[in-house]
Amino acid sequence: MNKRFNFASVTAISLVTLALSSFTTTVFAKSANFTEQQIKQVEHIKEEALKSDLAWDIVESLTTEVGPRMPGTPGDEAGVAWAVAKFNAMGFDKVWTEPATFPKWIRYSESASVVSPSPQKLHITALGGSISTPKDGVEAEVIEFETLADLENAPEDAAKGKIVFINYRMDRHRDGNGYGPAVKARSGGAVAAAKKGAVGYVMRSVSTAHHRFAHTGGSHYKEGVTKIVSSAISNADADQLQRLIALGKPVTININVQAKSMGEGTSYNVIGEITGQEFPEEYVLIGGHLDSWDLGTGALDDGAGVAITMAAAKFATAQEKPKRSVRVVLFAAEEFGLWGAKAYAKAHESELSNIVAAAESDFGADKIWGIESNVDDNSLPVIKEIAQMLESLNVEYIETNAAGGGPDLVPLRPFKVPSFRLAQDGTDYFNYHHTADDTLDKIDPVKLRQNAAVYAVFTYMAANSKTKISGKK
Amino acid sequence: MNKRFNFASVTAISLVTLALSSFTTTVFAKSANFTEQQIKQVEHIKEEALKSDLAWDIVESLTTEVGPRMPGTPGDEAGVAWAVAKFNAMGFDKVWTEPATFPKWIRYSESASVVSPSPQKLHITALGGSISTPKDGVEAEVIEFETLADLENAPEDAAKGKIVFINYRMDRHRDGNGYGPAVKARSGGAVAAAKKGAVGYVMRSVSTAHHRFAHTGGSHYKEGVTKIVSSAISNADADQLQRLIALGKPVTININVQAKSMGEGTSYNVIGEITGQEFPEEYVLIGGHLDSWDLGTGALDDGAGVAITMAAAKFATAQEKPKRSVRVVLFAAEEFGLWGAKAYAKAHESELSNIVAAAESDFGADKIWGIESNVDDNSLPVIKEIAQMLESLNVEYIETNAAGGGPDLVPLRPFKVPSFRLAQDGTDYFNYHHTADDTLDKIDPVKLRQNAAVYAVFTYMAANSKTKISGKK
Repeated sequence: MNKRFNFASVTAISLVTLALSSFTTTVFAKSANFTEQQIKQVEHIKEEALKSDLAWDIVESLTTEVGPRMPGTPGDEAGVAWAVAKFNAMGFDKVWTEPATFPKWIRYSESASVVSPSPQKLHITALGGSISTPKDGVEAEVIEFETLADLENAPEDAAKGKIVFINYRMDRHRDGNGYGPAVKARSGGAVAAAKKGAVGYVMRSVSTAHHRFAHTGGSHYKEGVTKIVSSAISNADADQLQRLIALGKPVTININVQAKSMGEGTSYNVIGEITGQEFPEEYVLIGGHLDSWDLGTGALDDGAGVAITMAAAKFATAQEKPKRSVRVVLFAAEEFGLWGAKAYAKAHESELSNIVAAAESDFGADKIWGIESNVDDNSLPVIKEIAQMLESLNVEYIETNAAGGGPDLVPLRPFKVPSFRLAQDGTDYFNYHHTADDTLDKIDPVKLRQNAAVYAVFTYMAANSKTKISGKK
Repeated sequence: MNKRFNFASVTAISLVTLALSSFTTTVFAKSANFTEQQIKQVEHIKEEALKSDLAWDIVESLTTEVGPRMPGTPGDEAGVAWAVAKFNAMGFDKVWTEPATFPKWIRYSESASVVSPSPQKLHITALGGSISTPKDGVEAEVIEFETLADLENAPEDAAKGKIVFINYRMDRHRDGNGYGPAVKARSGGAVAAAKKGAVGYVMRSVSTAHHRFAHTGGSHYKEGVTKIVSSAISNADADQLQRLIALGKPVTININVQAKSMGEGTSYNVIGEITGQEFPEEYVLIGGHLDSWDLGTGALDDGAGVAITMAAAKFATAQEKPKRSVRVVLFAAEEFGLWGAKAYAKAHESELSNIVAAAESDFGADKIWGIESNVDDNSLPVIKEIAQMLESLNVEYIETNAAGGGPDLVPLRPFKVPSFRLAQDGTDYFNYHHTADDTLDKIDPVKLRQNAAVYAVFTYMAANSKTKISGKK
C-alpha cells in the first residue's frame, strides 16, 4: 500500500536540480551560520522533499490502518502502536513512549430532531465531555441567543426549562482568527445556559462548512453549576432552526446524547529521535498530535501534522547525521485538553532549555505561507537565513517574532522555549475540523509535499546552524 | 418569513426595462405566432421574474415548514397539505388532488462499521426498499467488484457468504450522463450479489461528492432471488474500504439496517391550474415532484422544481389570463418509482392530447443552459420563437427535437405528448442528490430566479402561441 520512499532513485535527478538552484546558493555564500556545503545540502533536501510522497504514505497508513484515534479508545492504542512501529521502520535512532493521563470520555450515540412545528431530524454531535440525556432524550422549547455574551447578559431564569441555542456563525479567515470568538460558546455555553435555568444546550457548530456535518470539540462544566447536555448542530441545521424560530411559533426539539465520563485514561506521547553528532542533548522539536476526535479519521487534524513532521525529520537527516538531535513528538490526548503536551513539559522540565527550536503542525494540510519565530534577539540572524531559504517555497517571513507555535507547545511557553509558527493557510480548515468529514481525501498530496519540504528545511537549518537558537530571556 | 411577491412595486422599473429590450422586440416584429403586444408582454414577464424571489420563498417555505417528504410519511402528508394551501394562497383558479398508490417503505436506522482489520465507522445509507438485517447486523468479509457487469460475470458462488462491494465511481457531467451507468449498480446490485451467494450488498454511492454523505435511492429485488440488505456508502468511505482491501488482508464489515416494507401507501398529486380564456381544455403542463427522500429536506430534489414551476405559472399569467390553461402538477411518490406520474397518465389517458407542452423541473436549481423539444415538425417554428426569446437568458436551442422531459413525464411518452427539456446545469447536482446534505443552503437564489424566468417565458409562449404545439405523430 505504501509506496516506499526511495532516495536512491531520485539522486540523479536531484543533481540536475542542484545545478539549477545556483541563485539561492549564491545568496547564501555569505552565510554566517551555514557553510556553502550546508546550503547545497538544504537545497537538495528541499528538492527531494518536493518530489516525495513519504508524508502522504504516512498519513494514508495512519488514517486507513488505524482510523479514528480518540484518547482512551482502542483506536488510540492502535495509533500508539502504529507510531512506534512506523518510527522504527523509518530508521529513527531512538523511539520511545511517555505516558500521559487524561479524563476519559466515550460517545455512544447522538441524535436530535425538531418535534414541532415540523418534525425533522437535526444533524447533531455531542461536545466532548457532555453528559448523557435521559434515555428518551431531553425535549423542550428552544430559546435562541446570537452570542454567548447575549446569553450571559440575559435575565436570571431567561432560559428556564428550555434548550438554549447559540446561533453564532464563525468567520472564515486564512489565519483561523474566527475560531477564538466562536469557540467560546463551545467551551462555556453549557455552563452559561445552565446558569439561566436551561435543561439542554445546543450551538451552531464552530464551522465554516457549507455541508451538513456537526463539529465536535472540547467543552466544560463547572462545579456548582448543573450539568446539562452540551451539543452542536451543523450550519445547515442551525439555518433551519433559525428559520423555524423566525416563523414565530414555539419550536420544540429533542436532543438524545448517550455518552460517559469514565475516570482517568492513559495514553502515550510517541517520540522518535535522530541523534545529533555534535550536541546530542540539544534538539529541534517538531511534531503533531497523534490522537483525533472519533467522528472522522483525523486526517487534517492531525494525521497531516504527524506525517509532515515524521517525513521532514527523515528528509532533514537523510544525507548525514545532524549537528543537534531532531526529535519528533507525537503528542497524546491533545483534543481532550493538551494532556500529552502537559505531561511532556512536566517530564522534561529540567532540560527544556535543550530545545533549540519547536514547531507543531496542527492546522491541516494546506500550504505554508509564512514563518514566524519567538526567539531571543541574538537568534534573529539565523531565523532570517531560514526565512530566506524558505522564500523559494513561497513562504513569507513574518517578522513579529511572537509566534505561539501550536497548541501542544502552549505548556512549553512558560519555559521560553524558542518557538515557531510555520503558518498554514487555514481558509478551509474549519470546513472539516472535528467532523466526520475529516478524511484522507481532504488532503492535497502536492500541498502536503510543500509542507514537508518547509519543515525539512526548517529542521535541517535549526539543527545545524552555527549559532544555537535560543528563547527569549 | 416569506417576503410576499409584489407585482405593483416593480411595475415602474419594468417599464424602463421594456424600453431597453427593443432589440428583442424588433426581432420578433415578424413573429408568425405572437402579436407585438404579446412579445412585449413576455419581455415584461422575463424581467419581473428575474427580479422576484417568489420561487425562493416557495422552496424556503416547503423545506422549512414541511422538511423531508418521503412517500407515506407524515412529512409527505404535510407536503400535500402545504401544496394545496400554497396554490390557493397564490390565487390559482383551480386546485385539486388526485390519489396515487405506491409500495410503502420506512427507514428506521442504518449504521455500518469495519470490524477488522481496523475497526471504524462507515457512513452508510439503506437503499430504498431494502430489507432489514438481523438486529445485530450482518457481518461478513467484503468482496470487491469494480462494476455490476464484473459481478454478473463472476463465477457462481463467487461471493458465497460475503458482502459484495461494488466500487464503481460515477463520472461528473453537466448533463448528468454519469448517472445512468452508475445507477445500474443501485437498481440491480442486491439481486446480482444475492445470485452469487452474497449475504449483503453495499455500493459506492451514486455520487460526485467530495463529502462523507451516503446517497440513497431506489433499488429492487426479484422474485425467486434471496433478498439481502441493499446499501450505499459515501465516496470517502468507499475510498477507505478500497484502501483497506488493497492491504491484502480480509476485511470484515458489519451492516445494520432496520427498515420495513409496509404494503400499499397512498399519496396525492397536487395540481394547480390557471384557466385559459380561449381554449380552457388545452393546457401547458409544468411541475416537479412534491415528495423527497427522507435524509435531507428535498431542496434540490425537488423543492426547487416545485418552486420554479409554481412561481413560473404565476409570472406567466400575472398580467392577463392565458389563451390556454397553465397547469402545475406536483407529482407524488416520484422517488419510489414515478407512482404519481403513472397515476396521472392513467387518470388523464383519454385527454392527454390536450397537453400542448409538458416540462418537468427535476434536476436541481443550477442555471438552465438549453431548451430541447420533442414535438411535431409543424410545431418547430413556434419552438424556434420560444428558443429565440430565451437567448437573452443564456439558453441555447438544442435542435435535436428528442427531449425526454423529466422523469415524471416518462409515463406520458407512449402518448406522444409534446415534451420539453429545459436543461439545467447538473455538474454539481450529484454532490447532493438523495443525501442528508440536500438542504436549502445548496440553492443559489440568483440561479433560481433565472430558472423561474425561463419557465415563465416558456409557459407564456406555449400557452399563448397562435399555433397549437402538438406532439409527434
